[in-house]
Amino acid sequence: MLTPWRTGIVHARDGEIWIRGRNVTALMQQATFTDTIFLLHRGELPTPRERRMLDAILTSVADHGANAPSCATARLSASGNRQSVSANVAAGLLAIGDEHGGAGETCMVLIQAGLARALDQNRTLAEVADAMVAESRTAGRRLPGLGHRVHTVDPRVEILFALAKDDDGQEPAPVRFMRELQRAAAAAIKPLPINIDGALAALLIVLGFPPQAGKLLFIVGRVAGLTAEVAEEYAREKPMRIRIPLDYDGVPPVAD
Amino acid sequence: MLTPWRTGIVHARDGEIWIRGRNVTALMQQATFTDTIFLLHRGELPTPRERRMLDAILTSVADHGANAPSCATARLSASGNRQSVSANVAAGLLAIGDEHGGAGETCMVLIQAGLARALDQNRTLAEVADAMVAESRTAGRRLPGLGHRVHTVDPRVEILFALAKDDDGQEPAPVRFMRELQRAAAAAIKPLPINIDGALAALLIVLGFPPQAGKLLFIVGRVAGLTAEVAEEYAREKPMRIRIPLDYDGVPPVAD
Amino acid sequence: MLTPWRTGIVHARDGEIWIRGRNVTALMQQATFTDTIFLLHRGELPTPRERRMLDAILTSVADHGANAPSCATARLSASGNRQSVSANVAAGLLAIGDEHGGAGETCMVLIQAGLARALDQNRTLAEVADAMVAESRTAGRRLPGLGHRVHTVDPRVEILFALAKDDDGQEPAPVRFMRELQRAAAAAIKPLPINIDGALAALLIVLGFPPQAGKLLFIVGRVAGLTAEVAEEYAREKPMRIRIPLDYDGVPPVAD
Amino acid sequence: MLTPWRTGIVHARDGEIWIRGRNVTALMQQATFTDTIFLLHRGELPTPRERRMLDAILTSVADHGANAPSCATARLSASGNRQSVSANVAAGLLAIGDEHGGAGETCMVLIQAGLARALDQNRTLAEVADAMVAESRTAGRRLPGLGHRVHTVDPRVEILFALAKDDDGQEPAPVRFMRELQRAAAAAIKPLPINIDGALAALLIVLGFPPQAGKLLFIVGRVAGLTAEVAEEYAREKPMRIRIPLDYDGVPPVAD
Repeated sequence: MLTPWRTGIVHARDGEIWIRGRNVTALMQQATFTDTIFLLHRGELPTPRERRMLDAILTSVADHGANAPSCATARLSASGNRQSVSANVAAGLLAIGDEHGGAGETCMVLIQAGLARALDQNRTLAEVADAMVAESRTAGRRLPGLGHRVHTVDPRVEILFALAKDDDGQEPAPVRFMRELQRAAAAAIKPLPINIDGALAALLIVLGFPPQAGKLLFIVGRVAGLTAEVAEEYAREKPMRIRIPLDYDGVPPVAD
Repeated sequence: MLTPWRTGIVHARDGEIWIRGRNVTALMQQATFTDTIFLLHRGELPTPRERRMLDAILTSVADHGANAPSCATARLSASGNRQSVSANVAAGLLAIGDEHGGAGETCMVLIQAGLARALDQNRTLAEVADAMVAESRTAGRRLPGLGHRVHTVDPRVEILFALAKDDDGQEPAPVRFMRELQRAAAAAIKPLPINIDGALAALLIVLGFPPQAGKLLFIVGRVAGLTAEVAEEYAREKPMRIRIPLDYDGVPPVAD
Repeated sequence: MLTPWRTGIVHARDGEIWIRGRNVTALMQQATFTDTIFLLHRGELPTPRERRMLDAILTSVADHGANAPSCATARLSASGNRQSVSANVAAGLLAIGDEHGGAGETCMVLIQAGLARALDQNRTLAEVADAMVAESRTAGRRLPGLGHRVHTVDPRVEILFALAKDDDGQEPAPVRFMRELQRAAAAAIKPLPINIDGALAALLIVLGFPPQAGKLLFIVGRVAGLTAEVAEEYAREKPMRIRIPLDYDGVPPVAD
Repeated sequence: MLTPWRTGIVHARDGEIWIRGRNVTALMQQATFTDTIFLLHRGELPTPRERRMLDAILTSVADHGANAPSCATARLSASGNRQSVSANVAAGLLAIGDEHGGAGETCMVLIQAGLARALDQNRTLAEVADAMVAESRTAGRRLPGLGHRVHTVDPRVEILFALAKDDDGQEPAPVRFMRELQRAAAAAIKPLPINIDGALAALLIVLGFPPQAGKLLFIVGRVAGLTAEVAEEYAREKPMRIRIPLDYDGVPPVAD
């Protein structure tokens, strides 16, 4: 027989549902959806500052346009399959990985490593950032969280950093580390702006999330956009509308 | 060459992003994630009452336990594939259909038909509900939105209906129609409580969503839970832990 | 506790595996993969003629080019997610539905209905085809299996029909019904060639498959192509290479 | 505008389709489905010995039972979503990763490294195997391709190795390397049988496939089983039949 699955997330009994110890009916009356997301992942309700940060994070990744791989994949799926909107949204998620939506995760690992090194070696964030930029150069590794294909400065970054300030107006350590990393990179390599992935990574560390949450919360935010993209595709477009132009450069026909 | 895709959802240019005409940086400072979801789907920001309704809707479907098909599928996927959390969450979505997470859609079609008939035929909601219950009985069709396998009364239903009241404390027509449907079914068939699908359907109609949104917004809410379930699976469980017990009842071995 | 699942497909015990009663080790020595596919779905091994038909069917749908929705979706998924080839292939499958890869299923339903009507009403296939074409015209329904966007005559059709002939060189009833349908449509509407979906549908009926298998066997065949497309995408293309051109036609920016 | 996609796999023009330079109509008349799979991935048709090896490989992984993660995930998806068989099969694929269906890939990397080292360092396969076993012990790494949770000896292994023999009855280098690895592990650690993953890996190297094909061809084979599992689920089981037993061990209810 199957051993029962352990779970610490949801407890359902006698028609009542508790999420991490909170009755769903109480949450429905008092919590926002963002509270529920935070509760599901962190096991407690957010403070007002944490809620504002998570709201801004999820909004910032919700949708960047129908030609991002996730949105385009969802729409292409809807071009051939109109029986299942969940299949279309799932197809969109399958384009999310280290290359799309995953940079936050890599940057969270970097920030965690930087903060741990500062604590363990009793060094300043600036010293650690200088050391890590030098190591990246030597190893020929790109620094996640810095630089962007399109923007010189992304206006979303400073908005996120402003929301992260504590009650005394101080920036928390993960934000200060990203600023030191940018300074160190500008000195050793070239001026590179902090990008949205770097800002998201810093805020998710502030909120207490593990690196894996970089991708998981990107998914939560992006599904808001994917569902809207799929709805628009069904409403406006005929099935099978999409034909990508091809250049065949393989072997010529073989005589049989 | 590929014809450019039309889109009315997101416009990105010169490093700026607008969602349905709203600059993302403004949304990040002023909007909740629920506002962004509403904006993406409805093209405008919600009123405070609409925001509260949508928050409660999304929270109510976020997670009902690790053994719902969507959550169990996501966890099973994580049992064999730990390279891609987006693949695990997508697997969970693929269990969402008419049978799981889809009842709201069917009920929204019913409510829309009922309201349209009342307007077109100049009849009361009570008369239309009586007629539609009678038709369902004759056709042997189940009425969506009524009855439940487990609960006799689902406490979430009245919470949702209370949130739907307008400024004068009046229940809107979709809610009143569901109450008439319940009364008519109790009189003609047997007492059946309004279930969560029926309550969600009524509120989504109040919010101006088309029936398809029944599934799409269930997906948005459930992804909050699926991501948490996947995170717990990775954190607590070994790969390949799950073995379902089997009874083979097929043909016996064939001698070769 | 979970009730054991019933299954009549595979029995594994003491390190031995039987598929539909056949020991896998015997199959590995004596059967082709196509035999195994047939066995899994039909419960017995194919005759040489059945094997040839199924080989041709699966080859005919394996890959029609990188711009079909299934292939393009798989490649777009690989553009953003290079951690999981199974996620990329799965994304490709999610573009398969009634609109892409599903026409065979609809046509199988039509052929089954036609053959049943001929038997039940003691009428010739020609008479039934004439009646069904007339009914389709009246109802304004398209006839599945006839007509094509590109080809006037698809060379694959006659190849499949030739493979379907029995030992006496006779075409089986499903093939003859498709020919009668074409003749009736040409007389009543306009000349329409039998397309590949119509030919596949006829052969799958000959092979004893239910309509659902129209999609399932398309999936089996197409996965051969999707895996090759994904492999080429990884080998030749950089991540995030694909950007679809967009025309935004939504609301203009709103002043905040 | 979108740059046309490069592709060397399929060329379609004027109603004709060529796969890697072969006209599909010719393939349909002369090739098996296994030939087409080989052609799509390797760019040429297999020899009779190669065809036999690939047939046996695909059959050996087609289905090991409804409780493997891939099959169970597909069935659970079908429990909640009966609108899209492609969604159900895709869900099954999403359970395939390094932990399920992926061991062949890891073992192919090991075999390739071993063969390259023997050539580069002018050493025998036995010497290289001894060195690699010693290195694995020192590093505390498990050796892929050896050992099994259930079987002491898997009968499929010797069948695959027999099919791999060349015309002179000689075992090719990848097979001999796996045998040397087993001998070296037995001497240095303990007797461990070559498992199915190790045998598949050796044969796929013989066939000229890169390591990634370990997962891709597992997918091709397993889809034969997944489609049959989904068909059985639809035919025999009611939706929402599956409920996994749960043990909640999270925080107790919080007073609101």
